[in-house]
Amino acid sequence: MSTETITSPCACGARPGDGTHAVEVDPEAKHAIMSRLRRIEGQVRGLQKMVDEERYCADVLMQLSSVQEALRGVGRALLENHLRHCATEAIRSADPAKTEAIYEELMELMYKNAR
Amino acid sequence: MSTETITSPCACGARPGDGTHAVEVDPEAKHAIMSRLRRIEGQVRGLQKMVDEERYCADVLMQLSSVQEALRGVGRALLENHLRHCATEAIRSADPAKTEAIYEELMELMYKNAR
Amino acid sequence: MSTETITSPCACGARPGDGTHAVEVDPEAKHAIMSRLRRIEGQVRGLQKMVDEERYCADVLMQLSSVQEALRGVGRALLENHLRHCATEAIRSADPAKTEAIYEELMELMYKNAR
Amino acid sequence: MSTETITSPCACGARPGDGTHAVEVDPEAKHAIMSRLRRIEGQVRGLQKMVDEERYCADVLMQLSSVQEALRGVGRALLENHLRHCATEAIRSADPAKTEAIYEELMELMYKNAR
Repeated sequence: MSTETITSPCACGARPGDGTHAVEVDPEAKHAIMSRLRRIEGQVRGLQKMVDEERYCADVLMQLSSVQEALRGVGRALLENHLRHCATEAIRSADPAKTEAIYEELMELMYKNAR
Repeated sequence: MSTETITSPCACGARPGDGTHAVEVDPEAKHAIMSRLRRIEGQVRGLQKMVDEERYCADVLMQLSSVQEALRGVGRALLENHLRHCATEAIRSADPAKTEAIYEELMELMYKNAR
Repeated sequence: MSTETITSPCACGARPGDGTHAVEVDPEAKHAIMSRLRRIEGQVRGLQKMVDEERYCADVLMQLSSVQEALRGVGRALLENHLRHCATEAIRSADPAKTEAIYEELMELMYKNAR
Repeated sequence: MSTETITSPCACGARPGDGTHAVEVDPEAKHAIMSRLRRIEGQVRGLQKMVDEERYCADVLMQLSSVQEALRGVGRALLENHLRHCATEAIRSADPAKTEAIYEELMELMYKNAR
């Protein structure tokens, strides 16, 4: 596989290489996901501050819902990338075991993150 | 209201005092919520590390689901406290406006956090 | 308990009477819920027809999402009624066992239906 | 496309034929989905009976959650079939427009049904 075809932050293709790392990563997609996760970290610290300052609990809960929504958004972006790159590569390989594994992984991931 | 009756981390009772802070807070409940939020902050930093190290994206997504589950748990604890203390106080007040406001707030919070 | 105070379709108050039926029911609320459930029954038959006619599966899935949304709506209406009537009655009773039971029931119902 | 290769209840492949029907359907998968939908129709009628008999509302809500769970199960089965057959066909076609359309459709369907 040439590095030129790899454009996702996961670019895994059924766990190539050492099976725990991506072979190659698109810097832009990675940068965007990192920014969103740093913002989420800040929101979680904001929640701690609200609880520490004994803010009205319905306000804390509304803020917590925003963090949940932001995490769902990151999950959706990661899942779409996984589908477009790793899952696509596995499905196009036409290798039955690889394809079967990716179908099961995708169904599992969808139903875990999407709620 | 005497401080002895206040046992929730929100202890709000339809936004008393300045309307943005709780009047009094049970130290133990507050401590438990703070610990969980600090652990979640650590998990979010862990996610950043995984993305930075270009880990396999299905592994990142599984870890992200754990953070979502942990946040739902904090939300559930906050909501139960809100129900047991603030909402209970408002409902027992038998003040129609206060009671109506708390019903609407509870329904909104439930359907935002529970997903 | 006088019948005049009963205004919900469940009007249960911590399982009075035989413990499985409501004591009294507001005819209007009952009528509205029944209409919605009959419409949902029709939608489920519509789904069967789509599958039987071998319609495009994404169209079947979109229709299925509408049924899920409609059921969540009925659940939300039932839960709000339960909160406004049965739960309110139990909370106002100030009976610790009754109140504790209703808090736990409410939390369970919320997290089951709201997803 | 020969009819022999079609094995899903949707077998759509980016809306072939008249764009609203599947080209060919696997009888077994269709039969299983139909049975589940008929059982769900019966459960919805059961809900109507419970509301009509003025049963305790928490019991009605628990029953309603079972119907929601059963519908999610049917949605999951339909989505998995869509992924294994229609989506796979579109992804393997390597036609950029077809592939792009199926990625967007899959993401939309996942996040609608999975909750």
